[in-house]
Amino acid sequence: MGAEPRIEIAGLTGMPEIRAGDDLAAIVAAAIERLGAGLEPHDIVVVTQKIVSKAEGRAVRLDEVEPSGLARDWGSRHRRDPRLVEVILREARRIVRMDRGLVIAETRHGFVCANAGVDSSNTEPGTVLLLPEDPDRSARVIREGLRRRLGTAPAVIVSDSFGRPWREGIVNVAIGVAGCRPLADYRGERDPVGHVLQTTVMATADEAASAAELVMGKTARVPAALIRGCAIRQGDGSARELIRPSDLDLFR
Amino acid sequence: MGAEPRIEIAGLTGMPEIRAGDDLAAIVAAAIERLGAGLEPHDIVVVTQKIVSKAEGRAVRLDEVEPSGLARDWGSRHRRDPRLVEVILREARRIVRMDRGLVIAETRHGFVCANAGVDSSNTEPGTVLLLPEDPDRSARVIREGLRRRLGTAPAVIVSDSFGRPWREGIVNVAIGVAGCRPLADYRGERDPVGHVLQTTVMATADEAASAAELVMGKTARVPAALIRGCAIRQGDGSARELIRPSDLDLFR
Repeated sequence: MGAEPRIEIAGLTGMPEIRAGDDLAAIVAAAIERLGAGLEPHDIVVVTQKIVSKAEGRAVRLDEVEPSGLARDWGSRHRRDPRLVEVILREARRIVRMDRGLVIAETRHGFVCANAGVDSSNTEPGTVLLLPEDPDRSARVIREGLRRRLGTAPAVIVSDSFGRPWREGIVNVAIGVAGCRPLADYRGERDPVGHVLQTTVMATADEAASAAELVMGKTARVPAALIRGCAIRQGDGSARELIRPSDLDLFR
Repeated sequence: MGAEPRIEIAGLTGMPEIRAGDDLAAIVAAAIERLGAGLEPHDIVVVTQKIVSKAEGRAVRLDEVEPSGLARDWGSRHRRDPRLVEVILREARRIVRMDRGLVIAETRHGFVCANAGVDSSNTEPGTVLLLPEDPDRSARVIREGLRRRLGTAPAVIVSDSFGRPWREGIVNVAIGVAGCRPLADYRGERDPVGHVLQTTVMATADEAASAAELVMGKTARVPAALIRGCAIRQGDGSARELIRPSDLDLFR
């Protein structure tokens, strides 16, 4: 396919099982080197929250968690492990919905998602994973490590899978970014007919995270991807820009 | 980039301004032929709602719309064209929120989105565009037309840009599909550690729509894209599968 515009997405494979303390940038850099095509300045490297959290030692052993009365009561009524419920409640700064066995919570970062981002699939037995403490910082650290090792700093996105109201299924979104602007703001630009585009702000980083998921799969061992050719806006952005302020949100 | 898994996304360019009655499949087929790489059976063709609606004659002339009292009152209070508000109300089967100048509505198809999907950017002056009457059917018609002209039937996704609660910016999602399953259901499959994946259903068609948007841009004339290498599940699916049933939705 020779036409422009054109994007390529390659899964980064052959990475070892990630453990706390691992140098994730070094491991991702090695996987990029195995692709054999180096890095280009406008590349985007998408890394899943799961391996970022693992490398940052964000695993919690459930047998060390003492559930509160609320966690015990709600967990037993909904057949969920009360210790897991306790971890979820501790990660939340606000509960948005707690119904039908589901907890939709606002995390300390401000993300609204199921289980306050606590991840209990594909973790070491008896443990769950918390979100990175500061996913933008995680992205910056990986970006700096890639720059040091490969000579080029790509945009870096830390991705996680979130559900959405009204729609079935989960999609990858960006929870941390470095070296790019997560939103592409077209307001004030003109469409081809000459109208000013009034309200068009695309969540490009979320779309790039979703695009990367297409090469990852859930059961495959592809925890990162390289996107080449995507016109994400350069700059010093933060995934916080993707969080709608409470006072502008009709659904908090 | 030589490694697998790998996806390529090419924007389909050089298409004329679409008018009511145009044979969209023929126009898309010609754009694919200009790419020079034919079609492969697992390709996905993503076509924006805007050109589908234009081809299907879904434009409404605002000067032929008589606003109701509600549309006049609400429009004047929020400085929105009462005739546009009237079209939005007619397209809705339920209003989810009507606040701060925004109308979030459930369309007759069941999609929950801003303005009941009524599109007023990049349309002919004095007109707005309604969603296709049956976007799955639109996708099927394009798919059949591509099969007839190019000898291969790709998956076809009709995409639109929707906002999300809690997150800034809009992302492309699938509102019509043909020749694929929009959801990838991993429930019952095992993760690499051997755990059964409990709740993982990925909205692959939405992620593919978002991926395609990365080559489209809002002001560029790229109203369709070809995705090659994406492991979307084959089959006879419907975008209705992407709509969460009201009784399972915590946010209706």
